[in-house]
Amino acid sequence: MTNGLLPEGLRDRLPPQAEAASRLLHRVIVAIGRHGYDRVSPPLAEYEEELVGRLKSARRQDLLRFVDPVSQRTLALRPDITGQVGRIAATRLGHRPRPLRLAYGGPVLKLRATQLRPERELTQAGAELIGTAAVPAIVEVLRVAIEAMEAAGVTGITIDLTLPDLVETLAAGPLPVPTERLAALRDALDARDAGALAGIGAADYLPLLEAAGPLPAALARLRALSRWEILDQRIDAIAQITDALDGRVTFTLDPTERQGFEYQSLIGFSLFASGLRGEVGRGGSYAILHADGTAEPAVGFSLYIDPLVDAGLGQEPSRRVFVPVGADPAAARALRREGWTTIAALTDDDLPVGCTHRMVGAVPEPL
Amino acid sequence: MTNGLLPEGLRDRLPPQAEAASRLLHRVIVAIGRHGYDRVSPPLAEYEEELVGRLKSARRQDLLRFVDPVSQRTLALRPDITGQVGRIAATRLGHRPRPLRLAYGGPVLKLRATQLRPERELTQAGAELIGTAAVPAIVEVLRVAIEAMEAAGVTGITIDLTLPDLVETLAAGPLPVPTERLAALRDALDARDAGALAGIGAADYLPLLEAAGPLPAALARLRALSRWEILDQRIDAIAQITDALDGRVTFTLDPTERQGFEYQSLIGFSLFASGLRGEVGRGGSYAILHADGTAEPAVGFSLYIDPLVDAGLGQEPSRRVFVPVGADPAAARALRREGWTTIAALTDDDLPVGCTHRMVGAVPEPL
Repeated sequence: MTNGLLPEGLRDRLPPQAEAASRLLHRVIVAIGRHGYDRVSPPLAEYEEELVGRLKSARRQDLLRFVDPVSQRTLALRPDITGQVGRIAATRLGHRPRPLRLAYGGPVLKLRATQLRPERELTQAGAELIGTAAVPAIVEVLRVAIEAMEAAGVTGITIDLTLPDLVETLAAGPLPVPTERLAALRDALDARDAGALAGIGAADYLPLLEAAGPLPAALARLRALSRWEILDQRIDAIAQITDALDGRVTFTLDPTERQGFEYQSLIGFSLFASGLRGEVGRGGSYAILHADGTAEPAVGFSLYIDPLVDAGLGQEPSRRVFVPVGADPAAARALRREGWTTIAALTDDDLPVGCTHRMVGAVPEPL
Repeated sequence: MTNGLLPEGLRDRLPPQAEAASRLLHRVIVAIGRHGYDRVSPPLAEYEEELVGRLKSARRQDLLRFVDPVSQRTLALRPDITGQVGRIAATRLGHRPRPLRLAYGGPVLKLRATQLRPERELTQAGAELIGTAAVPAIVEVLRVAIEAMEAAGVTGITIDLTLPDLVETLAAGPLPVPTERLAALRDALDARDAGALAGIGAADYLPLLEAAGPLPAALARLRALSRWEILDQRIDAIAQITDALDGRVTFTLDPTERQGFEYQSLIGFSLFASGLRGEVGRGGSYAILHADGTAEPAVGFSLYIDPLVDAGLGQEPSRRVFVPVGADPAAARALRREGWTTIAALTDDDLPVGCTHRMVGAVPEPL
């Protein structure tokens, strides 16, 4: 006999959390769909080279892999759905007019848990806008993300904006840093280490660290130190984006942050909310690689449903009516159609456990 | 560069089928929940011995297995959720009062496709009633199955009833067949081979084959040949079950059918419907093994969402309104709240592709 234990990082969702997870995923997907994002549903497993090949950041050793006895090939369980949606956009929906709006929601499996997220199976939902990553596209995607979170009952939303390729762009242009020192520059910025920056002759980057924090002050500091068109353009873009969504959320800016934004380009963002531990989701602009070698601009976001469930969102009391033995099945059915949950007695001894009402004739009476 | 091909038996669901699948799963789960079945959500992968150990019919070699680098143990992807729900009922929810009603819905992965179902990833949804497998429990589960199918838009439902352990029960009792000939008896019955039955000295079983077909005629034939209490009891049970659900569905009976009912005991059933190829679902009574060696009676059913999607169910036209550049975002949001799908122009050149309306001021006007 087995003991019912589960592998590390995998778990059962029980009532009422399992129902909350289902309800929240449904609400998020419906909210995304209202913006014209059409649902796609890629498979749980693919050839590992497909999963690795589509996203710059994906690595073979980060996948849960297995040899498929049918194809005799190595498959991997998807750790993320975004890359699969990119594959669909580039191949099977390559002929559809752009902008192409796609939505998705389903389970993903990570090789390793993190301290912040001890689960290895998570439910991911999101939207990808394909064919443009211009400011109006970024505004739309952030608007969809906000409404999806609001549909799930999330409040107090904060969006942390980052400029993932800013440092590389400056280093290749107006604030030159030799390629061999780029990694050291990144490390010094990540560590916010002024001494290390000076040590590699990159003290000019120090003011970027000080331009982090809540908008609009952070943006004003960034604007004050900018002497380069490429930075001015980004500042203008951020101002346009945040102005368009003014009043609905709080924005912060960290121009040098790149952790987890390995495949975002112009803009990246993390989604946070009151009462929720860690990130709720993230997104940004990126490029989808096509078979002919071209790169198509795209922007999108992903939410994880799990932190929302863990925070108690999505739970709703149901009106549960006890149906005694011998009651009219048609009357019970009519109550279900009105939204009641019916609990049918199977014997005369059954008790109305967990019920709020009891059916008397065709009418629910409070217990 | 990769070519975007998928492994055999795995596929992308594209619009509009992906949305239909999501909608149908939601409707089925909601319909099941209205009968007081609380949602549980077990993980996609477990230790292989857990998945094998819970169900009599599960075999190690039928699972998609992989070595988990984290636990260094062999995990398997679930080919079925029923066994996992049994595990939850026996362990984490072992203390909950009975009857325990649990619902589930999510993806499963089969090692091999079948001719009837070329997909290896399917979406399974269902309900398990745990603690009893008496006639009222079977009636309830069939009622839930019928209402779940109806919620998905299924019509013309036929339920094929079987008595999975009848032959073994007769062979061990009033119509004795030596254990070593049981397999030959089963094969002869499956092949409907009268000569083979006579050859193994089991000609007495021939009338059982003739008691197959639409109710109530098949049941009358079975009753006419019964001279044994154990068969009479089953005939009475089937009569009670079908009477309780009279008029809503068509019933057929095949008392010796056992294909795919390896773990059902008293009763098994397959669900069919007009316009749908093959089975939509199945279920029956069975036993859940507890750690103390006891077996708890249960009855349940599973539906597959995929044949419903393939038949075109769950697709609904949406009212899609084109929102020109410069339109009031609050007005567009109000339309979404009313159930409209809004397609926002990102540039002045965007065309209202796929839209039924265009927003003029705050009002959608037909295109």
